[in-house]
Amino acid sequence: MTPIPCTVGLIQMRCGDDPDANMAKALDRIREAARRGANVIVTQELFRTPYFCQRQDMALFDLAEPIPGPTTAALQSLAEELGVVIVGSLFERRAEGLYHNSAAVIDADGTLLGIYRKMHIPDDDQYFEKFYFTPGDTGFCAWRTRHGVIGVLICWDQWYPEAARLTAMAGAQVIVCPTAIGWHDDDPRDVQLAMSDAWETVQRSHAIANSVYLCAINRVGREGRVEHFGQSFAAAPDGRVLHRASPSEEEIVVAELDLARIESTRRQWTFLRDRRIDAYGDLTQRFLR
Amino acid sequence: MTPIPCTVGLIQMRCGDDPDANMAKALDRIREAARRGANVIVTQELFRTPYFCQRQDMALFDLAEPIPGPTTAALQSLAEELGVVIVGSLFERRAEGLYHNSAAVIDADGTLLGIYRKMHIPDDDQYFEKFYFTPGDTGFCAWRTRHGVIGVLICWDQWYPEAARLTAMAGAQVIVCPTAIGWHDDDPRDVQLAMSDAWETVQRSHAIANSVYLCAINRVGREGRVEHFGQSFAAAPDGRVLHRASPSEEEIVVAELDLARIESTRRQWTFLRDRRIDAYGDLTQRFLR
Repeated sequence: MTPIPCTVGLIQMRCGDDPDANMAKALDRIREAARRGANVIVTQELFRTPYFCQRQDMALFDLAEPIPGPTTAALQSLAEELGVVIVGSLFERRAEGLYHNSAAVIDADGTLLGIYRKMHIPDDDQYFEKFYFTPGDTGFCAWRTRHGVIGVLICWDQWYPEAARLTAMAGAQVIVCPTAIGWHDDDPRDVQLAMSDAWETVQRSHAIANSVYLCAINRVGREGRVEHFGQSFAAAPDGRVLHRASPSEEEIVVAELDLARIESTRRQWTFLRDRRIDAYGDLTQRFLR
Repeated sequence: MTPIPCTVGLIQMRCGDDPDANMAKALDRIREAARRGANVIVTQELFRTPYFCQRQDMALFDLAEPIPGPTTAALQSLAEELGVVIVGSLFERRAEGLYHNSAAVIDADGTLLGIYRKMHIPDDDQYFEKFYFTPGDTGFCAWRTRHGVIGVLICWDQWYPEAARLTAMAGAQVIVCPTAIGWHDDDPRDVQLAMSDAWETVQRSHAIANSVYLCAINRVGREGRVEHFGQSFAAAPDGRVLHRASPSEEEIVVAELDLARIESTRRQWTFLRDRRIDAYGDLTQRFLR
């Protein structure tokens, strides 16, 4: 088999208040990533807007837009022009009063292949997502693009091994995780660092447990009382970090992924062979006591 | 509530060919761990014997013993004398021709609380476990001991997030993983180091994803073409490593675990709250394509 060339471009950026300016910046960065050789280009979570979930405000639902809609149209047009896959994370207005935290998956010919809707919704000080986002009903998905089979998880999803496993079982070779996570001003420095380390550790472990590539794309810079900590990274099927971005600066991570390593890793680390599917039924329970 | 005092003692040791000598050494180390304050003391995997699965030899089934049996009797007597919980990993003869890789869980009064039988069985060069061990039928368990609720996973289990999740859902506050893993002589150094790093990463991620303590107990020293790499460790519910043992020397890891941190961590990192149990049914499938 001819190997499928897959080079990811992970767009880590700051966002301002003006969606049009954020959009223009993202389109520009996607072009730059493509110039640098990327053919699977992924935005951070909700790249068109500030991370607006720091407060609950009904007027902010106006930031949502349909998929397909103007933003996906612009991304599709750019994907076709550049011949690259684009995964864009968007605040989706699905119907009157029904909103999701979603990602549009666009193939390298500009086709909108599908939508993933964030399944796990957090709710925490400065992250009031349960107010805005209806939990997704897409389940865990993977799309066969021209540059590999791509699965998407969004931010809070990334803490759930069930989500990564099911995405890998759907055939994903590369799981991409658009994210907006940061250090909270109220936390002492050691707690902040333990949190960002845990964030990377859990995602690297998804790569390891499933022998897939895992790419996290985080925003960077201060918004309110949160310092988004960047550190977007691409991890190999053995968990090694191929490239890790700055914790404080805008950056595009470009990393070539050798998709043949998925099979060679799985032959050595035979985790899929030995799963005890007869014994996992209780994973659909809340707790066992 | 009065906090339950829990101080683990993880016995990382070399094993020779003589089971009696290994047993005597383990009993001695358990006493030493107790002297140093440990009250939950855990052996490495199959501590009575060399790691005999490096070859397939029918005569080696003679190393197996019943549970309860002479070894558990000795461990029970010591547990009662010292007033400590002991988890001992044993090659179990359950019936004629039916053998398991098991762990006996003994409470601080010497009661044999139960047996965990390794659920995931590897098979690889130098690890011919499918020849020796029938896959366990215990499922994933946790036992309420005098020093905390203890769950057990054994070696290969530790790569499976499903196993850790179900053990945590059974109520485990501390998951202990007796292990016999090493660097293979045939692997280049960078592959060896990536492997031991992946081993720690995946287990730390179980601690994080479930907000539990995770203790890995590995053997150390050369056996045949494998260099067991030690590095037994205790990780906190936020994934931080409290103590990590030497990669080359015998050592007892003694670490005090604050079980109240499980609840305080879960209030901040609300992973259990937001699991999508309606969407996990396919985890009982082999693959989704």
